[in-house]
Amino acid sequence: MSLRHPGAKLRPHTKAHKCTQIANLQQNYGHKTFTCATPREIIGMAAAGVGEDLLLANEVVDHDRLSALAKVSENQRVTIAVDSEYTIQAASHAGLRDVLIDINVGLKRCGVAPELAGQLADFARKQKMTVRGVMGYEGHLMMIDSHDKRKQRVSESMQLLARAAQDVGGEIISAGGTGTFDLHDSTCINELQAGSYALMDTHYAKLNLPFDQSCFVLGTIISKSDGWLVIDVGLKSLGMDHGNPTIDGYDVMFCSDEHTTIVPNKGQAETKVSVGDKLRVIPAHIDPTMAMHEMAFLVRGEEVIDAWSIDLRGW
Amino acid sequence: MSLRHPGAKLRPHTKAHKCTQIANLQQNYGHKTFTCATPREIIGMAAAGVGEDLLLANEVVDHDRLSALAKVSENQRVTIAVDSEYTIQAASHAGLRDVLIDINVGLKRCGVAPELAGQLADFARKQKMTVRGVMGYEGHLMMIDSHDKRKQRVSESMQLLARAAQDVGGEIISAGGTGTFDLHDSTCINELQAGSYALMDTHYAKLNLPFDQSCFVLGTIISKSDGWLVIDVGLKSLGMDHGNPTIDGYDVMFCSDEHTTIVPNKGQAETKVSVGDKLRVIPAHIDPTMAMHEMAFLVRGEEVIDAWSIDLRGW
Repeated sequence: MSLRHPGAKLRPHTKAHKCTQIANLQQNYGHKTFTCATPREIIGMAAAGVGEDLLLANEVVDHDRLSALAKVSENQRVTIAVDSEYTIQAASHAGLRDVLIDINVGLKRCGVAPELAGQLADFARKQKMTVRGVMGYEGHLMMIDSHDKRKQRVSESMQLLARAAQDVGGEIISAGGTGTFDLHDSTCINELQAGSYALMDTHYAKLNLPFDQSCFVLGTIISKSDGWLVIDVGLKSLGMDHGNPTIDGYDVMFCSDEHTTIVPNKGQAETKVSVGDKLRVIPAHIDPTMAMHEMAFLVRGEEVIDAWSIDLRGW
Repeated sequence: MSLRHPGAKLRPHTKAHKCTQIANLQQNYGHKTFTCATPREIIGMAAAGVGEDLLLANEVVDHDRLSALAKVSENQRVTIAVDSEYTIQAASHAGLRDVLIDINVGLKRCGVAPELAGQLADFARKQKMTVRGVMGYEGHLMMIDSHDKRKQRVSESMQLLARAAQDVGGEIISAGGTGTFDLHDSTCINELQAGSYALMDTHYAKLNLPFDQSCFVLGTIISKSDGWLVIDVGLKSLGMDHGNPTIDGYDVMFCSDEHTTIVPNKGQAETKVSVGDKLRVIPAHIDPTMAMHEMAFLVRGEEVIDAWSIDLRGW
């Protein structure tokens, strides 16, 4: 990812890993600007001294959280997304100064309509805020199967962002994610907000992206019956919104809170594994999976070489 | 629940709330025996001094975790489920003394086949362990729509447990959950392992049980567009394996990591809520939802009257 989008061309998203040590690794690859999804992520990144320019790519209206962000912004550049007069006033009253205008580029979520972006930027400037530019997130296009069709739709979506950028002014045009990382060569954006590429999951793996799976939940077989096995990794340790996890060589029957019941792939000989053996579970969605764990263990082969706190969890 | 299953007839399951303060409330209602799903839950309950007789209703093979449980058992009765010679030896080597034989009563998960339970109990006694009895979990029957059919199937399932209990000996015959709380009057069991009843969720609500929803994730509207609203409660704060959450008066379009996009129910007039307003989000599955949050806030009306740590999270 760093080869394709070096330095400030990539604003790595911390929401995918929630770990300042991984962010630090991304910084070592030349990225000093970061994207965050929660106040806690911004505060944690600043406390760890990672990054120089932190974007909260999300709307916040809670005064206490905004004030905490304003405090961080005394020593560190903090920019927040806004998409309404309400969010601008809330950020301004708390003492935040830098904003991006969040544009709706087709995903039915946050973001102002492109044609209203200019007047919202004017409103922010009247509150003495610095409008650094625009952001949009084409999240509704990440999983379009066909690469060509995805590229076409991203191009159309980014025309909405380009129009808004013209009306808003500022230097930043920020968008994108892991699923569209190679579709922005001819779009207006000057930075990509990708996160999942660093760890990956089976959902993004469907797109045949050039990023490898690097994160697993390690399960131990705790029970073996006539026809199935049970591992001690369940739905409390896996993001489930994209469905069941994957285990090489096995079919997943179902997940319970603390268990997953599996059977050897059809056509396979009877499995040779026993109670006490370990299996790697590949999450279907990496972001919520990381958010469920306190620590990540770094392994080289079978050796644990380090343990990193997943320290940006919570809100 | 305490009226129907007073005292030791109910062994409340901590996995549904993961909060020693709620367990303490259950103790105040007369329950001193508790069910846990993870070593951390046992250790946390003992540290908080709640309960007198803690059952880990799950198999564990990790020596470090078993040793930590054995340490707890020096001051507190700790019983662990076993379903194989391997799990018995692992528990025995770590210094645990009390076991229940976990019986497969039809759910394809842990549990020894009923006809093998007696010899497994003999094996445990040869390891100088105390076999306190049997447990089984009819989790595959919890969501059968028809009350009569559910009762019939539970009755059949518990015949498997009764047979095993006869072969195993001991005093405890433990099974059940919230979905079968009123179906055991004529079964063999002498204690019910129910947990969800205390907080409830929309999944169990489908069964029209006499328990009210008491837990909500409080969302704030952070964005309002022409046709939809966005709240700051997303799939990182909600167990998603039973599907989307529910919000009174709204239809949920979709959940993202940190957002849920909603529209007013069809036929409703345009909503009057604004950015900054708060809505109560009802989880579809309570157990994983509680496991995602650090604190529970107790409210009476609009007033926050206490804050309780969800201190049994993790493994």
